[in-house]
Amino acid sequence: MNIAIAGAGGWGTALAVLLKDNGHNVTLWGHDPAHLARIEDTHKNEEYLPGITISGAIDLSPDLEETCAAADLVVVAVPSKAFRDVSSRLAFFDGTIVSVTKGIEYMTGLTMCGILAETCPRACHASLSGPTLALEVARGMPSAIVAASRDISTAQRVQHAFHCSTLRVYTCSDLLGVELGGALKNVIAIGAGVCDGLGFGDNSKAALLTRAIVEIRRLGVACGAQGETFSGLSGLGDLTVTCFSRLSRNRAMGERLGKGEKLSQIQASTLTVAEGCPTARSAYHLARKLSVTTPIIDEVYRMLHEDKDVKVAVRDLMSRDSKSETAS
Amino acid sequence: MNIAIAGAGGWGTALAVLLKDNGHNVTLWGHDPAHLARIEDTHKNEEYLPGITISGAIDLSPDLEETCAAADLVVVAVPSKAFRDVSSRLAFFDGTIVSVTKGIEYMTGLTMCGILAETCPRACHASLSGPTLALEVARGMPSAIVAASRDISTAQRVQHAFHCSTLRVYTCSDLLGVELGGALKNVIAIGAGVCDGLGFGDNSKAALLTRAIVEIRRLGVACGAQGETFSGLSGLGDLTVTCFSRLSRNRAMGERLGKGEKLSQIQASTLTVAEGCPTARSAYHLARKLSVTTPIIDEVYRMLHEDKDVKVAVRDLMSRDSKSETAS
Repeated sequence: MNIAIAGAGGWGTALAVLLKDNGHNVTLWGHDPAHLARIEDTHKNEEYLPGITISGAIDLSPDLEETCAAADLVVVAVPSKAFRDVSSRLAFFDGTIVSVTKGIEYMTGLTMCGILAETCPRACHASLSGPTLALEVARGMPSAIVAASRDISTAQRVQHAFHCSTLRVYTCSDLLGVELGGALKNVIAIGAGVCDGLGFGDNSKAALLTRAIVEIRRLGVACGAQGETFSGLSGLGDLTVTCFSRLSRNRAMGERLGKGEKLSQIQASTLTVAEGCPTARSAYHLARKLSVTTPIIDEVYRMLHEDKDVKVAVRDLMSRDSKSETAS
Repeated sequence: MNIAIAGAGGWGTALAVLLKDNGHNVTLWGHDPAHLARIEDTHKNEEYLPGITISGAIDLSPDLEETCAAADLVVVAVPSKAFRDVSSRLAFFDGTIVSVTKGIEYMTGLTMCGILAETCPRACHASLSGPTLALEVARGMPSAIVAASRDISTAQRVQHAFHCSTLRVYTCSDLLGVELGGALKNVIAIGAGVCDGLGFGDNSKAALLTRAIVEIRRLGVACGAQGETFSGLSGLGDLTVTCFSRLSRNRAMGERLGKGEKLSQIQASTLTVAEGCPTARSAYHLARKLSVTTPIIDEVYRMLHEDKDVKVAVRDLMSRDSKSETAS
């Protein structure tokens, strides 16, 4: 299969390596020609995926439209804030587009495949999401992921393209649930990182995660997703790895917040994007709009976007008076 | 309140410290007078709870019956294999007994409160379970836990006794679900440790955990528990912390198995009990009896009790052919 990958960050590059190993013709597009030239010269993408060798058999291209016109399947792996712009340039495309970007557009409340429905109406849409730290996938560590599409044959096509001995690909028809699980978990991971930064332990994070999956499910169901999806790989699975792994960007950002750094300082010093930051804003407003109670998302939003003191935010969260476990 | 704690291991000792701080009169019983004497002399329990100072205001006693006769509330914190023996000696007790032991009796398939119903019929029974590594609770790190009892006033009495600024206690009426979640998660944690020992990453563990909670729920529901309980602190929460924390005994045992050590070697070199080992045997047989599919529990059982090669067990587990995420 001819596969184009739009986005030469860590995840796009890791998937390029995997898809090439799976026997596909792979072209990797990036918006920065200088970055592509460094990959071409060094066979590495040290900024985003350190230590991984990138086969010379992966083509590199600075021309998005040309690259995708020649592809059967396009993987969009750009930050959520660039997703509408990039996908708008693929309006002509009538193959399969797989979003591996996790976010919620602020102005519209749309997930990435919601944006694709507007920008690429001729294509089949799918999302690939799950507990898959890019570096571990690139290192061939056993991982599992979900290919979601409203159209089961599209999900199966994606499954077939990506499945290999180290990456088990499951299918799911609840596209919205898979996308919301993947997006919302990044918000919670920032909260988990704050706990780390404040010196709390694993007990605290496990309690946070347990309460968080309840509110993720509640918000997701209010948006129209199926509740059980959030117990799957893209909900619970991804939430777990993002909250506990040292490799998670969102957790790491939260840890720095917890240690007292300001958001502006953190953002100025990191190349990679912590998607939980814009998603917190989108999710907070979505919850207001749908009248859904989301105490953890709300406090992460306030820490990030209203400059609320992290200790006060955590105290406010912990002092909420719920006595029975099943009570919301 | 006069509280007796039966069992001077790590968790019993940590709870003694917490309950004393909560203003109760606390007596700690242990079966080994020499161990109690060391605690008395050093104000530490270095074998089981290193680095924590134990107030001299906590009474130490080698006499179980006398200690419990004077108590309003008894906490049983002995290994599951000693639970029936110890609780049988408290048949006279008509106050509240809280089990903090996590296990399933092999011969009967009973949880610890199931045993209490036989051994201590005059008492009110409750279980306290959740993502609470003993050392973190003793260090005052924020934690959350569930007090479960079929009788809500018993659960609330336990909640009131244990609740403090660093330990949030929720109540739950699904006693069986809380107990099974706490017991079965130890089996999975051994599997997670095996993944660590084999050099897998966090992606693998997150996928394992996500699939595991499905089979824990399935087995629990077949036993008569409520499905949603397993999404709570004693199910998902405890599973998470046990699979990811460096401090988990069961995970640590699995890691050594994954690195090639034999069970007998591991057991000979550790003082603490990894409850997942006997629980794997009980759960495996319970699943057969109830005709429940439990692929992860089965492979952990075979590694532990049938000397199955860990790499073969992991390969067998990963090659199971399920394509859709919601399929069992």
